[in-house]
Parts: sequence; C-alpha cells; structure tokens
Amino acid sequence: ANAPLATIARIGEHEGHSVTLRAWLYNLRESGKLLFPIFRDGSGTIQGIVPKAAVTPEIFERIKTLTQESSVIVTGKVRADKRAPGGYELDVENVEVVQRVPEDTPFPISLKEHGTDFLMEHRHLWIRTPRQSAILRIRAEIVKAARDFLDDNGFILTDPPILTPAACEGTSTLFPVEYFGDEAFLTQSGQLYIESTALALGKVYSFGPTFRAEKSKTRRHLTEFWMVEPEWAYAGLDDLMGLAENFISFLVDRVLTRRAADLKVIGRDTAKLETIKAPFPRLRYDEAVAMLNDAHAKGLLENPFEYGNDFGSPDETYISSQFDRPIMVHRYPAGVKAFYMEPDPDDPKYALCVDVLAPEGYGEIIGGSQRIASYDLLKTRIEEHNLPLDAFQWYLDLRRYGSVPHSGFGMGIERAVAWICGLEHVRETIPFARTLNRIYP
Amino acid sequence: ANAPLATIARIGEHEGHSVTLRAWLYNLRESGKLLFPIFRDGSGTIQGIVPKAAVTPEIFERIKTLTQESSVIVTGKVRADKRAPGGYELDVENVEVVQRVPEDTPFPISLKEHGTDFLMEHRHLWIRTPRQSAILRIRAEIVKAARDFLDDNGFILTDPPILTPAACEGTSTLFPVEYFGDEAFLTQSGQLYIESTALALGKVYSFGPTFRAEKSKTRRHLTEFWMVEPEWAYAGLDDLMGLAENFISFLVDRVLTRRAADLKVIGRDTAKLETIKAPFPRLRYDEAVAMLNDAHAKGLLENPFEYGNDFGSPDETYISSQFDRPIMVHRYPAGVKAFYMEPDPDDPKYALCVDVLAPEGYGEIIGGSQRIASYDLLKTRIEEHNLPLDAFQWYLDLRRYGSVPHSGFGMGIERAVAWICGLEHVRETIPFARTLNRIYP
Ligand SMILES: [Mg+2]
Ligand SMILES: [Mg+2]
Repeated sequence: ANAPLATIARIGEHEGHSVTLRAWLYNLRESGKLLFPIFRDGSGTIQGIVPKAAVTPEIFERIKTLTQESSVIVTGKVRADKRAPGGYELDVENVEVVQRVPEDTPFPISLKEHGTDFLMEHRHLWIRTPRQSAILRIRAEIVKAARDFLDDNGFILTDPPILTPAACEGTSTLFPVEYFGDEAFLTQSGQLYIESTALALGKVYSFGPTFRAEKSKTRRHLTEFWMVEPEWAYAGLDDLMGLAENFISFLVDRVLTRRAADLKVIGRDTAKLETIKAPFPRLRYDEAVAMLNDAHAKGLLENPFEYGNDFGSPDETYISSQFDRPIMVHRYPAGVKAFYMEPDPDDPKYALCVDVLAPEGYGEIIGGSQRIASYDLLKTRIEEHNLPLDAFQWYLDLRRYGSVPHSGFGMGIERAVAWICGLEHVRETIPFARTLNRIYP
Repeated sequence: ANAPLATIARIGEHEGHSVTLRAWLYNLRESGKLLFPIFRDGSGTIQGIVPKAAVTPEIFERIKTLTQESSVIVTGKVRADKRAPGGYELDVENVEVVQRVPEDTPFPISLKEHGTDFLMEHRHLWIRTPRQSAILRIRAEIVKAARDFLDDNGFILTDPPILTPAACEGTSTLFPVEYFGDEAFLTQSGQLYIESTALALGKVYSFGPTFRAEKSKTRRHLTEFWMVEPEWAYAGLDDLMGLAENFISFLVDRVLTRRAADLKVIGRDTAKLETIKAPFPRLRYDEAVAMLNDAHAKGLLENPFEYGNDFGSPDETYISSQFDRPIMVHRYPAGVKAFYMEPDPDDPKYALCVDVLAPEGYGEIIGGSQRIASYDLLKTRIEEHNLPLDAFQWYLDLRRYGSVPHSGFGMGIERAVAWICGLEHVRETIPFARTLNRIYP
C-alpha cells in the first residue's frame, strides 16, 4: 500500500484520496453483498464499506471473516458522509491482517453489556472501547490544559516528594512504606512542600499522584489519585479565587474546543459546559447555610443543616443546583478547616478558605486557602491540633525566614474529569483505578 | 506604592519606570554612603542601589539594617546597566518590610560554603539560593518541553498506576506497601501498563514518579525519580530511535532558548549544548565493543571489555567522549537485556533495543526497545526468566488480542536535568531528593 499514513481523527485532511490506517477491527456488519467493518486506530473510529464487487474475492473473504480486535492495516479512499458520526467513511481497498484473534479465544469485551467487576478485571482491554478511549483522551486534555494554564501564568512546576517522613494529620488514612528500616508514608498532598518552593520561586505548582488509605467505597473515592496544586507567594484569598475560576474556565473551554468529538462519543450534554465561564458566584459559608436553612424550611431539603459542620453531599448538590456554574464557598468557620489556614482579619472565627463546588451534584473539586503567615500563630495551631511539633520544624522555618502571605489550592484530577465528562463513577477517569477492593491489573 | 507590579525576570519591560517587586533580601553590601541590596523574587535576582541622599533617613536605615531573607516589598526605578548580570539595576525608592528575620536567628544558609549534609537537611531553604532556584526552573522547563513535544506529536498522556500488584523482576529493589492487608509495590516503570494503553490509543506516554529501593549511594541514583515513557503502537526500533533523537534535541533547544539566564547563573558551558541536534550517531553494540577493544589496546582504557556485558561507567564515558552529541547504541546481545525485547529478525541473538548515552560522561539517559509481539515467544521468555506466569496473564492478553509491533523508551528526568545543567550529583535536580540515607524534609 503506497497510500499515505493517516489517523482517523484527522482523516478529513485526505478527503477524496486513498490512505493507510494502522488499526484494529472494532465491529463488523454484513448486509447482502456489502460488508461494513468499523475500524479504530486509537484516535477514533471510522466505518468502512466493502461492496463485494469492489475488491478481489480473497480480500472480501479476509474482511468477512475478521474477528473483533484483530489488528489490521487498512487501505481505502476517504469519502465525506454527513450521516457518519465523524463525517467520513472509508471505501476499503485492501486489508492486511497483522494478528487475527482466533474464534476460540475471542476478545473478552464483546459488544454486549458486561458487569463492572468483569470490565475492571479486564481494564487493560476495556480501555480500547470507544467510550473509555474518549474519556482517557479528555483526561489527557484536562491535564495538558491545567499545566498550560499554570505555566503560561508564570507558575513553575516543582515536584514534591511522594515518600514523606512523618504523619502530619493522623496515620489512619496513610499508606505506610518500609524505607530501608524506617517508616515512611505515601503523600496525601504536596502542599507543605510547595509552600517552601513558593517562597523560593514565587509562583509554583505540583502535579502528581496522591494517596489515601480510606476504607470508603463511594463513586467519588480512589485510593490513588492525581492532584494539581498551585501555591502562590504574596497572594491572598481574593487572588486565589480569581485564579481558581479562571483555571476551571480554561480547562472546560479547552475540552470543548479540542475534544468535541470525544464529548460526542460519550454523549456529554455540552450545553451544561458552555456556561462555565468566570466569574463564578462567591458565597460566604454563612450565606450558603442560610440558603440551606431556607430550603429545609420550604421542604426542599430533608435534613436541617447544623451550623459549623462541613457540607454533606445533599447540601452541596442543593447549593450547586441553584447556579449554572461552579460556586465558590468561602470563609468557613475556622474549626471545620485545616490547622494551617489564615484567620480572616475581619473576624478571626472564619478561615480565609474557599471550596469550589462543581455543578450537577459533582461536589467539591477544589479546596484552598490562604496559609498562616505568623510563626507564633502557626505554632499555636500545631499544638492545639496535637500535631508533633518536631515534624513541623522545617514547615515553621517558612515563617521564621521571610514569611509572606501566600495561598494555594488543590484540585483532584479524577473528580474534575468525572464532572466534565458527566460520569457516574471516578473509576472510569483514570487508566487503572485503585480502590479498596482493586489493585489489579 | 502605586508603581506596577513586576518580576525580576521580565523587569526589562519596565526600563526607565518605577516598579514594585515582591521580594526577599538575598544580600546587602555597603560602600560609604551607598547601599547595594540584592533582591530575589523567585524569577531571578537584581541589585538595587540606595545613595544616602536619595531616600529619607528612615528608609536608608531600614534598608541598611535588613537581614538576609527578610521579605520585602520594594519600589524602585529600572535602569539598564550592561555590567549587571541580568542587564538591569534598580534605583531603590522605598522598601517595606513584610517580615524581618531577627539577628539572633539568622537564615541558616549564609553566603559562605556549607557541607552537603547541612544543605540537604535545610533543603526547604537551600532551594532559595540563586543556583538551586535556577536548576529547579530548568527542571520545570525540561518537563514542560518533554510534554509539549509528545503532546504535539500525537502522544496521549496515560497515567499508569503507582501501586502495582505483583513483583515483576525480583522484589529486592521494590518498595513494598501494605494495601488493606495485601502486599503491593511502588512502580519501577509504567511500561507494561502503557503497552496496553498504546494498543488502545495508538501513541501514548506516561510521566510520573518511579521508585527503586537500591542500596547504592552514587551520584546518579535516587530512590524516587521521575520517568517519561512514550509507547508507540505500530512502531519499530528505527521509528523509536528517530523519536529519541528528536525528543532530546527539542529538550535541549528549549532550555537554551527559554532558560538562557538560568544556564548563565549556574555557569553551564552552553557551547556543549548547542551541538545537540538530531541526527545522533548510531552504533551497534558490536561496533561500540570494537571501539572499546581498540581503546584498551592503545592503553586508553584500563580494563578490557568482556563481550556480552552491559557497559560500565568508564566504557560509557569513553564511547561518549568520541562524539559531540548523544550516541544511540543499539542491538545489544539479547541476554543482557530485558525479557520483553523483540529479537532482531536478521539475527535473533541481538535485541531490537537502544540505549542513548549522554555526552560528557553522563551515561545512559534513555533506554528503549521494540517489544515482543508474539504471544508464544513472550510466554517462553517469561518462563525462561522464571517470572510468575500468572502475574503476566493480562500482559500476555496484549499479544492474544490484536497484537502489533510496538516500541517505547524511558527517560529519567533527573539524569537528563543533571546532564543539561552539567551537575555533579542528581540530588540537586529535584526539589526534595530521596536517597538511601535521606527522607527528610
Ligand atoms: Mg468540603
Ligand atoms: Mg545500559
């Protein structure tokens, strides 16, 4: 085959010409003297058409007896067709088989429905199906967009360690690792480390895997998940909220622009994404609570909300249902939140913090705060929380030497992908999900 | 101060105008009625000038008594000066102190020499010094360049798991993790996983932390290091070598273009980087061995090279010293290399593999190969290597269902950074190095 190599995603560039595809057979229909093989090449899928009269009997027979997921090198002429999902069909000229999957050991993920356990057990093959491939391409786009946004806004990537020495906030959700006879733990967040790189480089971020040994089996939890965390020296809560809303808007716009075909494959309602533009509504915690109390009084929420708690899932869903874009809830009571958060100078019982709640009931996707700048206050808070002062000496150093106001947030990639793709469960947002009951393959 | 906010790296945009810097004091010299404070803001350093007559006595005194690493908001007018390292100096108008480091607890990393242990123990502060900050910015640029290159060439990021179930090649260099009662291990490479995503998405890569519990203390080893690994379906060894040389050339060019100021700060001889352009010399293993034998015969190498071994450090240094750019050594004897490598069809005692050796004695920075496509051969090799067949069933599935020729390589980020920056030791290439004896801070 001398036809130039093409990919399905960009096959339109070859309209009217013959191309070569390095592909796999996704499906095959037969209708009288016509064969309709559907090929996939990792960039998308395309339907081929093979009239019996158009090819040699040998080639017709070869295609007719192809099995699902056999690897094939396909030659054919690209034809525009408005009815085709991708806008093009392929008039097949030849198919060379690279490896034919035998009939007696067929590809396990047939086109019928399969149970979740079966699919997760065959995740290394499940990812080949159009829906799973599309989700993984969207995930990659979100990661790229997050990095581009931060890089282009002057944030320097600084990778915090995965293996960390001390347990910071209780060891019950930490994975211990034996480190040459010492005990180490897998990181839950790079924040403390990137506070130190922020004071070195000004604007920084981390982007890496984080771990939580939580025994919960919900559709929002993985034990291994990726976090992006910008940290910004000389920035306060208002700067941080501006950063968060611009960041999320940029991610959504990138996916809408560059992954339209994939959003279509997974059936995402893109109208719900097109409204996601900064500025986002900003609600004080107290205002959100008033909204919940009001809803409860009107019978719209079953349970009354107890002031001073964090929001539960029904609360988050109710609040976010009142808006067409993510909401930034800020200034929680300090007692609900982490020890390192700066108190609001206007009323120190509130923390200078923000949670960003995604629309459509997807809950919290970003949590952030201004960090305590004062050595004395931070030391007091560490003691009040019964944390080991020794382990925090290096962290306290950041307040001993050139302390500045600084702020940062963390966004879990899998929750962002689940929301942007409109998925039921985070397990589909990552190539190989790790959950309480699964670490294979 | 109403002067606009600026960063030192881009201060030239404000020449002749007053700017505000959010900074720290790096150093202070005094000469008669002149003060020369050097400020750093994370993007670079700049020298300020304060003639006694130019400011109020109060401001003069405030600057004169500043301590190292005190955080300050500086206002001053930007003046071009050819003698200044960055090309500009600042005529200081005002300095507001955010936090003053007290004299009795000075910043630990004074400007004198410190021992390595002391510096590593204070790594969270050491990273503020100009040389360490420059290295971290170059690291970030290399990471960004690697991702941009792969993204722009159609490779899709797919994150392999960090927690993996089975020990693939002996457990002695693996970190075990207790996973809810089961034993798991920290990944040493994403390769096997991304072979499966390559067969789903065509061209993929992984980029994440990998771990090796090696009890070696050399200047090239970390226990936690970052790897970028492209994997390419329907690609052979020649494709892979083309990818590797273009990839490395792109990284070096990006650093030369975008991080010239940082290369200057660390004193890198950039002439040695400017020659790094594809194509790179390609040497068969046998040709490299002939070169070593010849060198030994001439008395240029102390020890004779034993055919069939991997190259040692003096061998790599000798070979690479013969060329002005990285060398690609390909087709090693299959026995030296990993079980999954495709034999050369022209002579199956060689593997279709390549190691890229960096110049200046930096040794191997890339290792890659074409992977075995045949189910039967891969199964035989797993058995020959006494590996547990059960643990590899999912990996064998990739040869059962639509197997194709495919190839990939891995590049360790820290070694690449060490080479491009010209560093003695990899511990300076990552914010918080993990070594046999160090997991703090
Ligand atoms: Mg919350
Ligand atoms: Mg080698």
